[in-house]
Amino acid sequence: MDVVTLGETMMLFTPDNPGPMRYADRFSNRVAGAESNVAIGLARLGFQSGWISRLGDDEFGKKINAFIRGEGVDTSQVILDETADTGLFFKEKLAPGEWRVKYYRQGSAASRLKPGDVDESYIAEANYLHVTGITPALSDSCYETVLTAIDYARAHGVNVVFDPNLRRKLWPDHKARKVLTELVQKADIVLPGIEEAEFLFGNGTPEELARTFREKGASTVILKLGGTGAYYLNNAAEGYAEGFEVPEVVDPVGAGDGFSAGVLSGLLDGLDMKDAVQRGNAVGAMVVMAPGDVEGLPEKDRLVDFITNRNQSDVER
Amino acid sequence: MDVVTLGETMMLFTPDNPGPMRYADRFSNRVAGAESNVAIGLARLGFQSGWISRLGDDEFGKKINAFIRGEGVDTSQVILDETADTGLFFKEKLAPGEWRVKYYRQGSAASRLKPGDVDESYIAEANYLHVTGITPALSDSCYETVLTAIDYARAHGVNVVFDPNLRRKLWPDHKARKVLTELVQKADIVLPGIEEAEFLFGNGTPEELARTFREKGASTVILKLGGTGAYYLNNAAEGYAEGFEVPEVVDPVGAGDGFSAGVLSGLLDGLDMKDAVQRGNAVGAMVVMAPGDVEGLPEKDRLVDFITNRNQSDVER
Amino acid sequence: MDVVTLGETMMLFTPDNPGPMRYADRFSNRVAGAESNVAIGLARLGFQSGWISRLGDDEFGKKINAFIRGEGVDTSQVILDETADTGLFFKEKLAPGEWRVKYYRQGSAASRLKPGDVDESYIAEANYLHVTGITPALSDSCYETVLTAIDYARAHGVNVVFDPNLRRKLWPDHKARKVLTELVQKADIVLPGIEEAEFLFGNGTPEELARTFREKGASTVILKLGGTGAYYLNNAAEGYAEGFEVPEVVDPVGAGDGFSAGVLSGLLDGLDMKDAVQRGNAVGAMVVMAPGDVEGLPEKDRLVDFITNRNQSDVER
Amino acid sequence: MDVVTLGETMMLFTPDNPGPMRYADRFSNRVAGAESNVAIGLARLGFQSGWISRLGDDEFGKKINAFIRGEGVDTSQVILDETADTGLFFKEKLAPGEWRVKYYRQGSAASRLKPGDVDESYIAEANYLHVTGITPALSDSCYETVLTAIDYARAHGVNVVFDPNLRRKLWPDHKARKVLTELVQKADIVLPGIEEAEFLFGNGTPEELARTFREKGASTVILKLGGTGAYYLNNAAEGYAEGFEVPEVVDPVGAGDGFSAGVLSGLLDGLDMKDAVQRGNAVGAMVVMAPGDVEGLPEKDRLVDFITNRNQSDVER
Amino acid sequence: MDVVTLGETMMLFTPDNPGPMRYADRFSNRVAGAESNVAIGLARLGFQSGWISRLGDDEFGKKINAFIRGEGVDTSQVILDETADTGLFFKEKLAPGEWRVKYYRQGSAASRLKPGDVDESYIAEANYLHVTGITPALSDSCYETVLTAIDYARAHGVNVVFDPNLRRKLWPDHKARKVLTELVQKADIVLPGIEEAEFLFGNGTPEELARTFREKGASTVILKLGGTGAYYLNNAAEGYAEGFEVPEVVDPVGAGDGFSAGVLSGLLDGLDMKDAVQRGNAVGAMVVMAPGDVEGLPEKDRLVDFITNRNQSDVER
Amino acid sequence: MDVVTLGETMMLFTPDNPGPMRYADRFSNRVAGAESNVAIGLARLGFQSGWISRLGDDEFGKKINAFIRGEGVDTSQVILDETADTGLFFKEKLAPGEWRVKYYRQGSAASRLKPGDVDESYIAEANYLHVTGITPALSDSCYETVLTAIDYARAHGVNVVFDPNLRRKLWPDHKARKVLTELVQKADIVLPGIEEAEFLFGNGTPEELARTFREKGASTVILKLGGTGAYYLNNAAEGYAEGFEVPEVVDPVGAGDGFSAGVLSGLLDGLDMKDAVQRGNAVGAMVVMAPGDVEGLPEKDRLVDFITNRNQSDVER
Repeated sequence: MDVVTLGETMMLFTPDNPGPMRYADRFSNRVAGAESNVAIGLARLGFQSGWISRLGDDEFGKKINAFIRGEGVDTSQVILDETADTGLFFKEKLAPGEWRVKYYRQGSAASRLKPGDVDESYIAEANYLHVTGITPALSDSCYETVLTAIDYARAHGVNVVFDPNLRRKLWPDHKARKVLTELVQKADIVLPGIEEAEFLFGNGTPEELARTFREKGASTVILKLGGTGAYYLNNAAEGYAEGFEVPEVVDPVGAGDGFSAGVLSGLLDGLDMKDAVQRGNAVGAMVVMAPGDVEGLPEKDRLVDFITNRNQSDVER
Repeated sequence: MDVVTLGETMMLFTPDNPGPMRYADRFSNRVAGAESNVAIGLARLGFQSGWISRLGDDEFGKKINAFIRGEGVDTSQVILDETADTGLFFKEKLAPGEWRVKYYRQGSAASRLKPGDVDESYIAEANYLHVTGITPALSDSCYETVLTAIDYARAHGVNVVFDPNLRRKLWPDHKARKVLTELVQKADIVLPGIEEAEFLFGNGTPEELARTFREKGASTVILKLGGTGAYYLNNAAEGYAEGFEVPEVVDPVGAGDGFSAGVLSGLLDGLDMKDAVQRGNAVGAMVVMAPGDVEGLPEKDRLVDFITNRNQSDVER
Repeated sequence: MDVVTLGETMMLFTPDNPGPMRYADRFSNRVAGAESNVAIGLARLGFQSGWISRLGDDEFGKKINAFIRGEGVDTSQVILDETADTGLFFKEKLAPGEWRVKYYRQGSAASRLKPGDVDESYIAEANYLHVTGITPALSDSCYETVLTAIDYARAHGVNVVFDPNLRRKLWPDHKARKVLTELVQKADIVLPGIEEAEFLFGNGTPEELARTFREKGASTVILKLGGTGAYYLNNAAEGYAEGFEVPEVVDPVGAGDGFSAGVLSGLLDGLDMKDAVQRGNAVGAMVVMAPGDVEGLPEKDRLVDFITNRNQSDVER
Repeated sequence: MDVVTLGETMMLFTPDNPGPMRYADRFSNRVAGAESNVAIGLARLGFQSGWISRLGDDEFGKKINAFIRGEGVDTSQVILDETADTGLFFKEKLAPGEWRVKYYRQGSAASRLKPGDVDESYIAEANYLHVTGITPALSDSCYETVLTAIDYARAHGVNVVFDPNLRRKLWPDHKARKVLTELVQKADIVLPGIEEAEFLFGNGTPEELARTFREKGASTVILKLGGTGAYYLNNAAEGYAEGFEVPEVVDPVGAGDGFSAGVLSGLLDGLDMKDAVQRGNAVGAMVVMAPGDVEGLPEKDRLVDFITNRNQSDVER
Repeated sequence: MDVVTLGETMMLFTPDNPGPMRYADRFSNRVAGAESNVAIGLARLGFQSGWISRLGDDEFGKKINAFIRGEGVDTSQVILDETADTGLFFKEKLAPGEWRVKYYRQGSAASRLKPGDVDESYIAEANYLHVTGITPALSDSCYETVLTAIDYARAHGVNVVFDPNLRRKLWPDHKARKVLTELVQKADIVLPGIEEAEFLFGNGTPEELARTFREKGASTVILKLGGTGAYYLNNAAEGYAEGFEVPEVVDPVGAGDGFSAGVLSGLLDGLDMKDAVQRGNAVGAMVVMAPGDVEGLPEKDRLVDFITNRNQSDVER
Repeated sequence: MDVVTLGETMMLFTPDNPGPMRYADRFSNRVAGAESNVAIGLARLGFQSGWISRLGDDEFGKKINAFIRGEGVDTSQVILDETADTGLFFKEKLAPGEWRVKYYRQGSAASRLKPGDVDESYIAEANYLHVTGITPALSDSCYETVLTAIDYARAHGVNVVFDPNLRRKLWPDHKARKVLTELVQKADIVLPGIEEAEFLFGNGTPEELARTFREKGASTVILKLGGTGAYYLNNAAEGYAEGFEVPEVVDPVGAGDGFSAGVLSGLLDGLDMKDAVQRGNAVGAMVVMAPGDVEGLPEKDRLVDFITNRNQSDVER
């Protein structure tokens, strides 16, 4: 495996019409999960990725499993759990730019992930382990599972990539701050958004915040600055990679996951940090121009075209 | 109020296409609840009915509340609970005649109904209290709530109508048998299906089973025999009311609730038992010829037309 | 023109789901009109047909006009009326086999058809004039228009074909009976259903009823007996043409119009009465096996195939 | 009742796709009526509102009645009329920003509203009577009904709120101008849009036009200036309340009704005129950010959030 | 006929949702063809137009034929070919402004058009023959057919109108350049877009490019400059006609065809070149504000309204 | 691999409504291919199956590949061909029980399968090679490819299973008869339908026909007799396995593929011939009770339930 990731994927239901959901009577469903998005993004770019999770041994679990496997991700580590349900959630578009989410995920199969679900040898053979801050918020055993996976990675020299992915609905702020900081300490690469950085360490410039992450223990920090691009910092390199112009944001969800997939694909291809981050920006931009989390994830040739032909200027300020 | 009822109503999602739900990506939703069906059936026939429940203070709860109120049912006793979700469930049509249900109702708002939610004076002013065997299966506090409502009814001379509505997915058989039998003892009128009767008291003819119900304490027993009709027994009357011929069963769900509404409307109109049960048969037949639980519930004039013009023969065997 | 016809065509709205329309929130629309169905049926079989009518000069009128012209019917005599609306109606499927119709056609453009709208030379050049009993029910001027068209036809030796098409919602029984009888007297060929025949002349066998029609003035009577087939009677021929077996009636509407188109196509092709009526039976059968009024109308080769290969036995009893 | 209102509500059909309706074959339907929108807006904000009307005793009438009752509005005064149809209309989106409406409402049930339909005691117990300029345009008896309701209100000290709601398709300009002016004279509060004000009294600044309304007899004038906000004038107060920024207008219909509901809710809550008008602006803005007339109407907590957090500056020029 | 045109029309399938088509499972279909769009545009403006083509003798061919005939275009010259399929294509909206097309048109019925399919007398009686550069790209026999039609036109003094409509997917650039240039030489009026002009003759100002077209043999050149408008040049007149402001481009496809229809309608109405080109601009603008190729094509009164009321300034620079 | 199969899978489009496709404007698409159905059926029952094919390197090809891989089939041998399109077809339901198919598959990617696409070692490691009579009908190179795969199988002792799957639209009868007979000779197990058997060898009883197959070279023959069941014959066993009662045939397509998957799963599980054939009958019955080709394919536990609980009697006549 080039990249192994770990987390919950749910069935997402969206009403066919915008406005409050009480007026909706038609819904579409999709597969949605931050970590599986990253795995799919990498598979589409030609890399080998694997996804570790639990799903209910029910129709929704089987649908999710088939979808992710169909996208070329290795799902051999996924457990179908007969004793718990697949999580689901509803997403309403209340008004332009105003979304609201309702979960039915308490006690979900994924929330029962436990350290024993992680196969050390599976992690050991990967180049990167990717984890997010959603998983430890789901349950204590999920938290333990993430720690275990990280321990295995570190024991075998596998790079740990951490995306904080703060979800304030899932846990209290103080707990989130404590655990996310702990995970920053254990990560080789962290990919926070600027608001997440400020949530953790208070206000500051990207440079200042990145330095704080480094002081906490992460060797490489890539700070996502929205449409503007990203700032990266490690021992070897430092700078801004500007974002790509997007004529219209069709669906913003999944941009961060696309960014992660882009950056990791760049590193796996041996790009330098600047070009890898630029690739992250490009994938993120392509994702927001299509509906859904994964529809916009590009194949390699479309990605190269996009980077070559779109307006983007890379600056070392 | 002519009839007050009590129970959980959920948001029902059904895939647009038959077959296993993993292949579905479009769903429609409806309001579904046995007790609210009865209340709606009575309102449509021109009676005053009220429904006591808890709903999540969320979009689904508000949708359910508006729908039932729109149908003319008094919802003044419904509590919107900010701390719990509205229950929901999915219904797949796996094959012709083979349905499968999946619940997301654990810890739902309705499962938190508690005795204090029932206003004694509200019950006291009703002619009938209608309860089902679903509610005590939801939680201990739901069980207590049903008992409380029955106590209030009995204290004020309100007739207690009990429909066992056995749901084996919700509780173990022995517990179901124990509680349902307890409720039979407390009821004035019981409306079991023949399979439910056999679940409770073993095999037997309708006459034998009805006698057993009477021995347990119910004064009036109306045993539903599916399309065949129903057998009724009390101190004053006894006999069979044959069912109505139905050219095609479009959707069988809600037939029993329609039956209850029909019988109660007949009793409220002062019909004798035989004619009231016939009316129950008619409403049940009309419900199964339309999709959904409540779409087929008739207004008075359509019901009278139906009884007058359809093939049905009433026999005293 | 081989056949010219005259009448109202409306926009039909049907809810996507069965059951009472109050629960519907999605509707499909189609073009629906008995006379235009006949014209389309003939055009599809390769004949030249023309349709005289008024439509509102609005989007629905333009849709209807384009649809009928697209099917190959001459619409040069259609008037788009700026001062009136195109009629529309809703059709609910209340229960299996139970339909209910609601019209918004009062004062519609077609109800304003007047004698001056009919071009004598257009009628004069036709082989057949086809009219139905719907048109005179719409308004006095519509009634006059039908009489005028018939007068033109008779003056020029054009055969008058009359389909009673009784619509009891549109006029009182006594008026319907009077006007339809008057039109029977003026027709060369009448195509009543058995119920219509009994409405006009009381109960009787097909033979008796056909004789009554002949006594009233129609030279050829073809009595439609539903799936059973039809009975025909004129100076030259008499007998039954049996119907074709239909595995499932998908949508019964339009069967009579298809029957008319089939019979007329047979007569235009020089078939004897028996074979022409058989063709009517075949087209009617094909229409009920497809949704909508015109979807099942066959092209010549499919019709010949159907007659050749399906189970049907023609008997002279 | 806090507010009683009176008027026609129709079934609205909209094609699923934009462009001329002749190309549409799928339609959705909704409940649409200016006065019932106001009643629903008030109910959602926690007030008691009642709606007086006639509907056809048909499926559309029953649907409208159930919908409005479901929203918490008192519909006890609604008459289901067996002799007339529920009005309906179609709304096409011809091009961006270009809408076209087609009515089938002539002779509708609501157009038969008559003075005797209004219960004096029902009006007498209200705080406000809300009427619009649509109703008197429907028929003479509707005009008389509005006058009667106003007379009852004035006799019992109930405040009369009048929204001109000019519909030039429904009556000739000179008649509209005469009747609307008459109603302005009888109203306590008038809520005209700026174009309506100019239609009635010619061009002028908001201040000038408001003064003219006052001279005509209205004691309070609130002049709606579109997205810009509103100008208010009465004995006690005068000024501009600026509008709220809206990122995208999803559906402009219903904004004025939301404005009325917002202002009335503010007055009922004892706000001063400036804050009440600001609340009107806020509700109007929230309505245009959701599809449909009522989907965007807020509950109290969302309204307060919106006013607190959105960009709006209130100026006394 | 006022205008006769010639070319392929296909069945167009578009996924209901944007994004890559692999995620689509619902498609809508429409009729799409540049030349039939022009014919429909002219018919809607009240002119007589005819369309020559081949279609498969299959359901799609019959649908296309009925649709175009329904729009009032003469389809008497259309051949239904039993030995070939109707072409079809799929159109994906990959991202805002990024479309991708996939054809299934190789060996289609239209690609089998041959010189013998063109009736000399049909061309001879027209005022204009309209051809595009798509047809010669389909096959050698299509190329020959276009030449034959042009020869007939020139022999009978019928004006030849040529729209290059470059489709680089259909043939190699060098061949396209050669054939399109040949057709320019044979045309009286050419209607190239600016990119097409540059493809043929290299970069240049509109004036320079127009002169080159004239030198090649076309007597009138109308150069389309997108939203900006158009530049026209012939012996008698020269100048710019500015485009119309469009609030939102709903669907850009069909704009050029609408432009052609507008210009030709103007010339047929005897307008001078400047006003005819302005009319072309107006029709093109109206087409892009509606979905589909033909939905936005205006009737004469809407066109006149649009030209009168919209912002457009006509300048002679 | 337990079973390797080989063949074309296409994108299937079906109109949302029955009737001739010219009236359809909404289509759904699915993945459809006889051989991939078998592979999916086996994967769902827990076996390892692999599918060899070519697909266009386009969106439809990628959709098909992802779907089949998602179902758990090994698609490592699938080639995405940049030079050819994925085949597609349309399926109309003309009337109850009357379907019509239209292909766009000429020159499709799968028709370019060639012997070099088959990896000998991949076949060598399988227990069974499954081929059908569709593939050799697609092209000469497809025919050669099937022969090559069979040669590899026989060289390595892999059992060859052959399902004739006669498609008379794809090739002339004499050629079909010749090639299918040749393949029968090379197969270990043949699974013809009774009509296919009669097409190849003339009329006869199942016993006679089975003997003929054996004489031609197949060691095991399983003759499918529709709902009645199947007759099997080889050296060791002989008899009838009766079919299962099916309350309603929802979609008959895919029954034969399900039968093959069921039989092969039985043989892989070591069942005797009679029980394996019964399992084939069961899977076939389950497939026809769900829409689509693969939706009804059961997992092992549902299959066992079905066999245990349904009415079926196995007789040795």
